[in-house]
Amino acid sequence: VDQPLAPGARIGIFGGGQLGRMLSVAAAQLGFRTRIYSDTTGPAFDVSEDGTVGAYEDVDAVRKFADGVDVVTYEFENVPHITAEAASAVTPLRPGARALEVAQDRLTEKSFIADLGISVAPFAAITTEADIETAIKTTATPAILKTRRLGYDGKGQASISGAGDVAAALKLFADQPAILEARIDFAFEISMIAVRADDGTMVFYDAPRNTHKNGILDTSEVPCGASPEIEEDARDIARTIADALDYVGVLAVEFFVLPEAAKGQRLMVNEIAPRVHNSGHWTLDACLVSQFENHIRAIAGWPLGPGHRHSNARMTNLIGPEAQQWQALAGQDQALHLYGKGQAREGRKMGHRTQLGPKTGDVA
Amino acid sequence: VDQPLAPGARIGIFGGGQLGRMLSVAAAQLGFRTRIYSDTTGPAFDVSEDGTVGAYEDVDAVRKFADGVDVVTYEFENVPHITAEAASAVTPLRPGARALEVAQDRLTEKSFIADLGISVAPFAAITTEADIETAIKTTATPAILKTRRLGYDGKGQASISGAGDVAAALKLFADQPAILEARIDFAFEISMIAVRADDGTMVFYDAPRNTHKNGILDTSEVPCGASPEIEEDARDIARTIADALDYVGVLAVEFFVLPEAAKGQRLMVNEIAPRVHNSGHWTLDACLVSQFENHIRAIAGWPLGPGHRHSNARMTNLIGPEAQQWQALAGQDQALHLYGKGQAREGRKMGHRTQLGPKTGDVA
Repeated sequence: VDQPLAPGARIGIFGGGQLGRMLSVAAAQLGFRTRIYSDTTGPAFDVSEDGTVGAYEDVDAVRKFADGVDVVTYEFENVPHITAEAASAVTPLRPGARALEVAQDRLTEKSFIADLGISVAPFAAITTEADIETAIKTTATPAILKTRRLGYDGKGQASISGAGDVAAALKLFADQPAILEARIDFAFEISMIAVRADDGTMVFYDAPRNTHKNGILDTSEVPCGASPEIEEDARDIARTIADALDYVGVLAVEFFVLPEAAKGQRLMVNEIAPRVHNSGHWTLDACLVSQFENHIRAIAGWPLGPGHRHSNARMTNLIGPEAQQWQALAGQDQALHLYGKGQAREGRKMGHRTQLGPKTGDVA
Repeated sequence: VDQPLAPGARIGIFGGGQLGRMLSVAAAQLGFRTRIYSDTTGPAFDVSEDGTVGAYEDVDAVRKFADGVDVVTYEFENVPHITAEAASAVTPLRPGARALEVAQDRLTEKSFIADLGISVAPFAAITTEADIETAIKTTATPAILKTRRLGYDGKGQASISGAGDVAAALKLFADQPAILEARIDFAFEISMIAVRADDGTMVFYDAPRNTHKNGILDTSEVPCGASPEIEEDARDIARTIADALDYVGVLAVEFFVLPEAAKGQRLMVNEIAPRVHNSGHWTLDACLVSQFENHIRAIAGWPLGPGHRHSNARMTNLIGPEAQQWQALAGQDQALHLYGKGQAREGRKMGHRTQLGPKTGDVA
């Protein structure tokens, strides 16, 4: 993408879920057409010009898909390497294969971030039972064992208080390569939704404070209540990571904010996501330009839109059967977003709601 | 539609233009699917589950379309009567055939509004040249001659300063039935975007002040600068009209605000539109719930969303080649909406942009 894509151009998206759907809608608002490629049909297909259901490993189908669009992006970090390779041989892939490689393996991700001089929780790779003892020396206990690949929303994770727990969890994970991470005693969690254009220009949204329920994001709220210095640090860290990846698009960085008692740096990176992020959904309603639109602007080579918000916001996810209360939810003074998914399975993200209030600054 | 439509239900839309497109996107946000029926393909097709290109007079195709959805609505008031009849025999049509009948003939519209005791410009029907003299006695000159049907954006209109002009204009209009309207000396124009639910509940947006260029809406701005009493009158009038039509959905009413010197009532209705309206596009960016979403909520039998705005707003249309400046427009602190239309023909609505500012109340 050397020239900005003109309105009318086609944007391809790997993944047909709610993030792809919201990306499609944002692209449409700027006059673009979107096409979806996914291994299963999903809610993004309903708001796109065209959709292909195919295996990600079917490189012929992937190539054909990429050939029909002007740029390809993705809504999830687990796009297989061969898929990314096949697509990018034909059409620009943004944010790009390197971001996928880093983000889809927790060991690669943690090492990459630590190598940039950014603070992360102490961690150690566990490939076989023989690694357990040394790993626990690195992290101490309590710790968390995570599969290196394909974990999300708390899946593929186990709490560890001793070596016996690790052995048991490894069996549960069918001996997949894993990573042991120290459990961090943090004050609260925030995230940075950053956007990077291909010329390196960056736009940052205010950092939301995030809470989780059963390992799944529950609420994101701005302002987050951290000091301006902490938010500044979060922006600097996001910039360092994005620059190192020569990143184009929205990058989400999740942070632990350490307690006041912690000396020096009070931020520690938990993980990154090379895509639009659930903790940025409030930008749809509280900002002139949402994270979805700014992702589209970035990958299309457009000027980024402003990241400032006009309101305070509190986003709450609607998980599984919670979305069945849509009638009551629609009657309240809030924005309601439903993703058009069929089955309200336990733990499935079905929608979210956003309450707005008059804008106030950060509470330091 | 006796029960509220559950998410996942299908909404049919007559018309495939930008209003249908923005309705589709709003419907998707609530988890609905949309299908478009239009006599030509258009930008709404790109964000819909399915689209049918067919003649509006092809009642078999219309019936089949209506049969595939749970409610039918429209983006334009010139849906032919037989189309509305065919659709509504199969599936609920909202706002309904009566609203179409009233709005698609300027004489019926004016008479209907005047019969409700609401002030409109003096008017008279002109069917043949024999009607000219009496008509001019009613309206005086200067006046405006308009075709009764199918005029929009200043098309099918002619300025009249004497009987000779009328005769000439009638020829230009190929002897279509016309209406002569007095030219009103107004201070400025506002509109009321009102939403009515099927139980009669109404929600009103703040009235924008509208300016036109070459007969086409140029800008809409809130607050409009009219007194609270005038805005209250505008709401009352919109309610009277909506109630009389047993209306469901968004109804737009355009008003002339008369100069201070005018005694008594300072509002006069210019025209109504039984649909979402260009002068309500700012609600996309300045309100939690836009006119498009509230139209969908109303026709789906949902609770209406709040109509309040969080910001001041100024919407400017991008007409014809103006939209070719998208790169410069995208670099400014504003929301940019492009409709995905192919050709930037002179006078064609290609997109709009919205600037926001901190909210202030009305300037009395």
